[in-house]
Amino acid sequence: MKVGGVSYRSIWRDGDGVRIIDQTRLPFEFHTLRLEDSQQVAHAIRSMQVRGAPLIGASAAFGVALAMTQDGSDANLRRTAEILAATRPTAVNLRWAIERMVARVTPLAPSSRTRAAWAEAESIAAEDVGLNLAIGGHGLELVRAVAGRKDRVNILTHCNAGWLATVDVGTALAPIYLAHDQGIPVHVWVDETRPRSQGLLTAWELTQHGVPNTLIADNAGGHLMQHGQVDMVIVGADRVSAAGDVCNKIGTYLKALAAKDCGVPFYAAVPGPTIDWSVRDALDGIPIEQRHADELLQVQGRTADGRLERIRIGTEGMVAANPAFDVTPARLVTAIITDRGIAKANHEGLAGLYRDKAA
Amino acid sequence: MKVGGVSYRSIWRDGDGVRIIDQTRLPFEFHTLRLEDSQQVAHAIRSMQVRGAPLIGASAAFGVALAMTQDGSDANLRRTAEILAATRPTAVNLRWAIERMVARVTPLAPSSRTRAAWAEAESIAAEDVGLNLAIGGHGLELVRAVAGRKDRVNILTHCNAGWLATVDVGTALAPIYLAHDQGIPVHVWVDETRPRSQGLLTAWELTQHGVPNTLIADNAGGHLMQHGQVDMVIVGADRVSAAGDVCNKIGTYLKALAAKDCGVPFYAAVPGPTIDWSVRDALDGIPIEQRHADELLQVQGRTADGRLERIRIGTEGMVAANPAFDVTPARLVTAIITDRGIAKANHEGLAGLYRDKAA
Repeated sequence: MKVGGVSYRSIWRDGDGVRIIDQTRLPFEFHTLRLEDSQQVAHAIRSMQVRGAPLIGASAAFGVALAMTQDGSDANLRRTAEILAATRPTAVNLRWAIERMVARVTPLAPSSRTRAAWAEAESIAAEDVGLNLAIGGHGLELVRAVAGRKDRVNILTHCNAGWLATVDVGTALAPIYLAHDQGIPVHVWVDETRPRSQGLLTAWELTQHGVPNTLIADNAGGHLMQHGQVDMVIVGADRVSAAGDVCNKIGTYLKALAAKDCGVPFYAAVPGPTIDWSVRDALDGIPIEQRHADELLQVQGRTADGRLERIRIGTEGMVAANPAFDVTPARLVTAIITDRGIAKANHEGLAGLYRDKAA
Repeated sequence: MKVGGVSYRSIWRDGDGVRIIDQTRLPFEFHTLRLEDSQQVAHAIRSMQVRGAPLIGASAAFGVALAMTQDGSDANLRRTAEILAATRPTAVNLRWAIERMVARVTPLAPSSRTRAAWAEAESIAAEDVGLNLAIGGHGLELVRAVAGRKDRVNILTHCNAGWLATVDVGTALAPIYLAHDQGIPVHVWVDETRPRSQGLLTAWELTQHGVPNTLIADNAGGHLMQHGQVDMVIVGADRVSAAGDVCNKIGTYLKALAAKDCGVPFYAAVPGPTIDWSVRDALDGIPIEQRHADELLQVQGRTADGRLERIRIGTEGMVAANPAFDVTPARLVTAIITDRGIAKANHEGLAGLYRDKAA
């Protein structure tokens, strides 16, 4: 997608390195970073310089390629896979991408691994774009159906599941971008998404693309739905269970409850690699990352004189808890927008589209 | 309640003036302000130096007393009542307190109005404390019932309905303070309550009183309820309809939905003056204040070198919407804890306790 008129992806190969957009400096500063080894990739994932389930997966794949460039041994492959897999626990795309890289590289002689690893990582990245365009195409039909009876389609989204969360195009935002590009009037209610405020990323990328949007507190979505101001909710996901339960950014569950209560359709937009066929009971079976309390107690912004500064919004000794994800039970999900079509949020619906993957 | 070992109320008479705690500087700085005329009171309410439905009511009452001290004419009484009533639209206690002051003062000769107005304002403030102690006593029984079967009672609250939101003691926090004082182990999950972050006030006052508490993002409560970590939700209210619908800080509705979904009891703690017997349909009948977008886009905190600073968390041109309250339908409310006892959240339940007030 474009930033100031120039096309970007969120990650790309740069010689023997990988270049990313440092998302911890957005929406204030657009700054790219060159990562030169897998340790730097692991740091970028942990510190959320890159974030979003599909982008985490692609980043880890490039991390394996960087490791193979330096040392193509079995020991290094195993060590790199372990380090990268441990960076974040919830998004299943991370594990999926690493397993795919290991499976591709392992049968090869160490001397052939570098080229194969780069090729595989670049395939993972390229495929992600294709999957997201497919999600966008299927989701577009849902938006178009609303546009037929309304002047403007109001879509609420939580967190950032746009192009910044993927390699390009986005998952939840893909149908929105495609609808906007086709001249369908869409407007997005953007949940701030405390504590990391990824809603600011969403507002930034929507605005870069010219899509009208309004930032709201995470508290506000239910009220808007009660008053008919939301036509549909579309979110991404970090992991979807085989039963259609949606694990996504903390607070998604609350929006799904409100959507159900107000008769607003609630969709999760996910590529195939986000579905974890091994998980049946999402509430117990998906590890929920507990992040540092400082994410809640410190906020970044610009001072009156233009400096980017981090301020402390709590006082000394304040205790905070920071679970990063929650699970929305399938019963609250109207449908799952996948790269292969729209699935009912249950095992039958998902397995119907992914017969080759379903257990 | 105590601050650093010294007893305070949130508002008190100070000669021919009124003294308040400047709540816009909490939890960072404890600072009192002397208000000398009703314009200053109106400003304090509008700018949220004082906030919380019961405290807004008491503040407006003192505002009328200040106005009568300067000019006891009918014209000034009418003008003052209008200015104060227009400061904030949602909390009904404001209108209730002003109407009570006007009714008390109007029959008197202008020369007698000053003393009567002060006496009435001080009565309103004193009565508020009594009402809150009564709420605390009734709510305590609900906490005690949970304590009988659990090592620790985990209570989630939204916004600040503690002593800072009232003249003293608080509404939602009253049962918690009383339980803690009786040795019942309570722990409070404190919703941050964006965009104004009144959760920081709640964390501050609970900590001053020694009550264990943990700040959480507004997004987190549903997840905690799904995992059995919340035994009850207690919130305050800005207005309760005759049918038991609860209008409270934006986001309350989302927590009530989660409580219902997870089988967690959801209570609103309100004094009689918060019940608006004239409202039957709360979703249409209660005006929802729309506050400035800057409340969402600017955050106050301490810099690394200790200065209190306001930073901008959005970028130029970001659009934000900021509805300040929402309505939780009575069907989601387990019961309403009033100063006269625990009422079912419906007209019959409330009118049974307030036969003298109910229409």
